[in-house]
Amino acid sequence: MQHGAASVADAHGRYGVDRWVGSGTTHTEDMVAEEVPVALVYNGFSHAVMMSTPQDLEDFAVGFSLSEGIVGDAREIYDIEVVEHAHGREVQMHLAGERFAGMRERRRAMTGRTGCGICGVESLDQMACRPIATIGVSGALEAGALLRAQSELQTMQHLFHLTGAVHAAAWCRFDGAVELVREDVGRHNALDKLIGAVAAQRKSFGDGFVLMTSRASYEIVQKAAAVGIAVVAAVSAPTGMAVRVAQAAGVTLIGFTRGERHSVYSHPERVH
Amino acid sequence: MQHGAASVADAHGRYGVDRWVGSGTTHTEDMVAEEVPVALVYNGFSHAVMMSTPQDLEDFAVGFSLSEGIVGDAREIYDIEVVEHAHGREVQMHLAGERFAGMRERRRAMTGRTGCGICGVESLDQMACRPIATIGVSGALEAGALLRAQSELQTMQHLFHLTGAVHAAAWCRFDGAVELVREDVGRHNALDKLIGAVAAQRKSFGDGFVLMTSRASYEIVQKAAAVGIAVVAAVSAPTGMAVRVAQAAGVTLIGFTRGERHSVYSHPERVH
Repeated sequence: MQHGAASVADAHGRYGVDRWVGSGTTHTEDMVAEEVPVALVYNGFSHAVMMSTPQDLEDFAVGFSLSEGIVGDAREIYDIEVVEHAHGREVQMHLAGERFAGMRERRRAMTGRTGCGICGVESLDQMACRPIATIGVSGALEAGALLRAQSELQTMQHLFHLTGAVHAAAWCRFDGAVELVREDVGRHNALDKLIGAVAAQRKSFGDGFVLMTSRASYEIVQKAAAVGIAVVAAVSAPTGMAVRVAQAAGVTLIGFTRGERHSVYSHPERVH
Repeated sequence: MQHGAASVADAHGRYGVDRWVGSGTTHTEDMVAEEVPVALVYNGFSHAVMMSTPQDLEDFAVGFSLSEGIVGDAREIYDIEVVEHAHGREVQMHLAGERFAGMRERRRAMTGRTGCGICGVESLDQMACRPIATIGVSGALEAGALLRAQSELQTMQHLFHLTGAVHAAAWCRFDGAVELVREDVGRHNALDKLIGAVAAQRKSFGDGFVLMTSRASYEIVQKAAAVGIAVVAAVSAPTGMAVRVAQAAGVTLIGFTRGERHSVYSHPERVH
């Protein structure tokens, strides 16, 4: 875990609150998770602004760059720097010339230029064109892995225990041992932070699985598939599009991972 | 409630699933909530594409237009039509000439032109500039209103009961009676659908409050404030930025609304 003390302190704040139980109230203080605008800036150009919990922002930037296909390897990003700004944070990155040129070219090819909700996608045609790599069958979950991963993750959700407000993404070995956890107000951000952290430690995305405390939307599956993660387990429900993307991409998608129960929606050959 | 039968059927699908309990598995079918790309198109121009649950899309388009300040009144939108597309849906709207010109003008004024995560905001400077109307104190919650609203809402979350995957936004009178419910995979979309439905019924946004089954992020508060909703109650936690926006905009923000407990983070004068 690479949470610095300063980083964790930035991720939440104290706010006055009237706490009601029935008809009685107590004025007290509450720990609240922060979200701030975080701009991802490549070679001086702002590519995207997202609301994010301000911790592990370098992991976030690396993971986003990988899962959105901006770079193919974390080593293509040089000189990451997180800069404080009056209204948020900027993560300034430098890309190799070719990668940056490719990113700018894709941006110029866009038509609508407003963008909302789906990163860089402005029309339905672009949506359908986004390629998904198909993942071959690699490792498989060992018996009891999901139960072990849930149990270990619960003790590692530090910001959630303080605030009750954030999602966690955990990187687990196939035996269920949790190796890395990242948290964020946004579930996609939590996964991007985790992907960045896995890359920073030079672990192989084929050697484990992801456990999310959230629902599984299609972007979760798409981001996992983009970097070669073959198994995604979510504590809550998947969406239909998440299931279809998982089927097409070769990802094993598991939903409602709760204690000894779970439901496998695609590629069950990796679950025994 | 204006859910048509066709609309509800589109909002979920059946998927094969291996359901595990301990070491045993059963192959069965599961109801899964759908999410599809929905493009909001004004006078022929695609303004935004969002992943949304495909029901109540007219409410969604009207609510989004209001909560994002594209129109000041639902009657400024003519001829809403939902069109099927191979990869999703388009909601085609026609705006009065002045409104459309204003929208295009704001788009031309943007600098970065990629956009991601925060609607139409591409740099941190723009983020800080977005105006929030300050809401005067109007009505106040009656005793027991939150308990009644929670209880009524639970019986009205039709898609959630089928799929376990969607958020709900409820429009409640100050005595807690739930008048309208809208559901979506995305919490912001659920709120936009609700805002559109309230507008369609010509109800006043000052005459009630919103209960969300989700966390309260700043966009929830900002969207509510934009249309003049003074009280927002969420079942789960708020974020720090949501609290600050609520304080500044004059919105009463209530979190952890669970049975007889709740916490008031801003403007407690509307809670007794």
